[in-house]
Amino acid sequence: MSRPDLAAALKGLAERFGDRLATGEPVREAHCQAPAWLPRHPPDAVVFAHSRDDVIAAVRLCAEHSVPVVPYGTGTSLEGHVNAPHGGICLDVSGMDRVLAVDADDGTATVQPGVTREALNRRVRDLGLFFSVDPGADASLGGMASTRASGTNTVRYGTMRENTLALEVVLADGRVVRTGGRARKSASGYDLTRLFVGAEGTLGVITELTVRLWPTPECTGSGVCSFPTLDAAVRTVVDAGHLGLALARIELLDPTTVRACNAYSALDLPETVHLFIELHGDEAVVKDHAARFGELALDHGGLQFAWSTVAAERARLWQARHDAWWAVHALFPGRSGIPTDVCVPVSGLAEIVAATEEDVAASGLDAALVGHVGDGNFHLLIMIDPDDPAAVRRAAQLTERLNLRAIAMGGTCTGEHGIGQGKAAVLPAEHGEAVHTMRAIKQALDPAGIMNPGKIIP
Amino acid sequence: MSRPDLAAALKGLAERFGDRLATGEPVREAHCQAPAWLPRHPPDAVVFAHSRDDVIAAVRLCAEHSVPVVPYGTGTSLEGHVNAPHGGICLDVSGMDRVLAVDADDGTATVQPGVTREALNRRVRDLGLFFSVDPGADASLGGMASTRASGTNTVRYGTMRENTLALEVVLADGRVVRTGGRARKSASGYDLTRLFVGAEGTLGVITELTVRLWPTPECTGSGVCSFPTLDAAVRTVVDAGHLGLALARIELLDPTTVRACNAYSALDLPETVHLFIELHGDEAVVKDHAARFGELALDHGGLQFAWSTVAAERARLWQARHDAWWAVHALFPGRSGIPTDVCVPVSGLAEIVAATEEDVAASGLDAALVGHVGDGNFHLLIMIDPDDPAAVRRAAQLTERLNLRAIAMGGTCTGEHGIGQGKAAVLPAEHGEAVHTMRAIKQALDPAGIMNPGKIIP
Repeated sequence: MSRPDLAAALKGLAERFGDRLATGEPVREAHCQAPAWLPRHPPDAVVFAHSRDDVIAAVRLCAEHSVPVVPYGTGTSLEGHVNAPHGGICLDVSGMDRVLAVDADDGTATVQPGVTREALNRRVRDLGLFFSVDPGADASLGGMASTRASGTNTVRYGTMRENTLALEVVLADGRVVRTGGRARKSASGYDLTRLFVGAEGTLGVITELTVRLWPTPECTGSGVCSFPTLDAAVRTVVDAGHLGLALARIELLDPTTVRACNAYSALDLPETVHLFIELHGDEAVVKDHAARFGELALDHGGLQFAWSTVAAERARLWQARHDAWWAVHALFPGRSGIPTDVCVPVSGLAEIVAATEEDVAASGLDAALVGHVGDGNFHLLIMIDPDDPAAVRRAAQLTERLNLRAIAMGGTCTGEHGIGQGKAAVLPAEHGEAVHTMRAIKQALDPAGIMNPGKIIP
Repeated sequence: MSRPDLAAALKGLAERFGDRLATGEPVREAHCQAPAWLPRHPPDAVVFAHSRDDVIAAVRLCAEHSVPVVPYGTGTSLEGHVNAPHGGICLDVSGMDRVLAVDADDGTATVQPGVTREALNRRVRDLGLFFSVDPGADASLGGMASTRASGTNTVRYGTMRENTLALEVVLADGRVVRTGGRARKSASGYDLTRLFVGAEGTLGVITELTVRLWPTPECTGSGVCSFPTLDAAVRTVVDAGHLGLALARIELLDPTTVRACNAYSALDLPETVHLFIELHGDEAVVKDHAARFGELALDHGGLQFAWSTVAAERARLWQARHDAWWAVHALFPGRSGIPTDVCVPVSGLAEIVAATEEDVAASGLDAALVGHVGDGNFHLLIMIDPDDPAAVRRAAQLTERLNLRAIAMGGTCTGEHGIGQGKAAVLPAEHGEAVHTMRAIKQALDPAGIMNPGKIIP
């Protein structure tokens, strides 16, 4: 990489973008996120792009002067994806927020990258369609594609990997490529769509996406059930999978989280492992499958399975799950949450969760665990005093230990948050020799190394 | 690429492989396939690999002497994937046919690349599981991953893209990489699994795969219905998708194919467009959804919808679909079939099929059309006299016209057969500037260009 000439880049960007180039500290700070144990590096400036041509112009100017480009959607990623450890320009595409086309027959939408998932869902709701991928935040679709986001209903509808059909990407030299198409499948050429999905902006900037939409289910059933042990809950999930029950969501809360929810939402749940399920289908299917799930749960020692297809009652049953994030924060006032996630084969879930609960206890830290258990994916929210460097260090160690354990079990150090800067050091432990292949691809597509440097590739 | 030294490579291979190196013409010929309008180029020799170490040794020797490597499973691909226009060594991995592990709880199987889909299904059947991807042939899983194969039940279960979780690949320099893992999802690093799936052996040789298995449905319902027009059939399919009916297969036969089946199997179907459907679920769902499909079909003018959940009756109803390939060949004795496939957004299917039927009529050729209509994917089987060069030329032109029309409609020049040598010339029309990106990746991973040269990248 040539020596960056930031001043020259800023001069060119100021000419092109005028007051859509911001260099003030508040804006720069607002465009920065880093894991607790890594230093925050706000970008040197922020460019607000309103069009593909804006993106091309900004990338070309940065390329010309060897200045890093950090793409930015809503800034809701969690592993320092928008930190700027090598400085450079944050390219904010949140203003590119138009839904360009919706095709109800084909179940596709083509959008600009700044469209958020909730905005898209508001747009397509009246067509009887919905966009399924639902990370916690109301993230932008460009960012969700870039981090290969998923969420609670992946078990039924897949992640951004399965739900992104086509992309338009501005490469590191300003050229534009279009990948994929609107057909459901293709055997034509290298799967560049899947290469850019999850590349976290290190190979280019997404300027357009075509995503899949699903028919809104005729009927939704929500249920909740407590279990005497984690293993009992996991066995129920595995058996439900074998039966092909129409589960769209299967969420697990650990006892700490349940306790937090009881306090936060004035609930009265037994403070043990709980599963929250959602079934999608027509009414007969939902009723039948809810009953069968209840029988399975009972067989495994589950208690108090309650379920409903009525909206108000469904909301009440799922309240603990919906409030979990805030409830855990409220349980530990003054603390900050450090979120992490891993994913393992479902059969290993009980083992890794048990080992993790032991690790948490041994660390002397407080943490809550919430899982998208149908996929073997779970989150640990470690609640620390942010001003206690020793606690931050222990949280980092706990996270690393969890990552390595998931990898050793045939899983991955992140099911949905991504690698970013926070987990780049773990990449070789998971991928071994394949990291060289990733590096070769990075080198081939971004030889100057200007696209979001310091992310993914260690 | 350095000048290949075939003699030196053959000497080294003979030392390493003994009588597992074959240079006789019958073996070389048996390992060659090319589209009708392209010259056949059998490889210079065939190596029968029995292990990953065999593959590494063969690839290293070929790399050392700049000799092309053409990976080979069952040789059932259709676009000249195993033709050797630049000569070189065919690496036959069909002897690597062991199922290494099956995990019923996780629904995964890890296999060597020579395991065929039917062999895997025999192995897992008693566990209540099945492997879903079903191209016509009993292809090897390594080849199916390499060509991003799919088949009739993709509409429900996905293609090899969705069903391949992890790979082991020997790269062009003999290094081994492992991609992916057994977890259902991951946001960790570039998606190399999806890069090698569909790379047609141009980036490396697959030596191990982990694939997804699905629970065998409790109940399967099969049905058939005739339609007055193609458009009526397609509208029925689109509406069924909106209703979320549990369709696992939706196959379309055009009137020519139906006529062929009537003659071949002594059936009495009206010689018009037909849909063959299959529903998977529990008995109540299958019965309910079959009834709803029947109502939809009726609304669109469909006639004589018949369906059953009884195995013998299901086989009878689907006989025309099962026999279609042979029936069409029998309808045109002495002719050879040239198969091609494209895929478009489902909403465009009626239009492109109608236009294609016109093109076929204008070409003076005979052709039959069969579609995996739930995905917008269809096959044209052009029946020509193989000794008539003018007919071969017209078939090539008809195919190209079809490819370009599918691309112009937002689709792809191949839904499941792949690019191989046969469609490499069309790649730029579909992918534009992105072909340069594909070439950059090829160059990064195989700088000497020895892996299956002449395929995919024009």
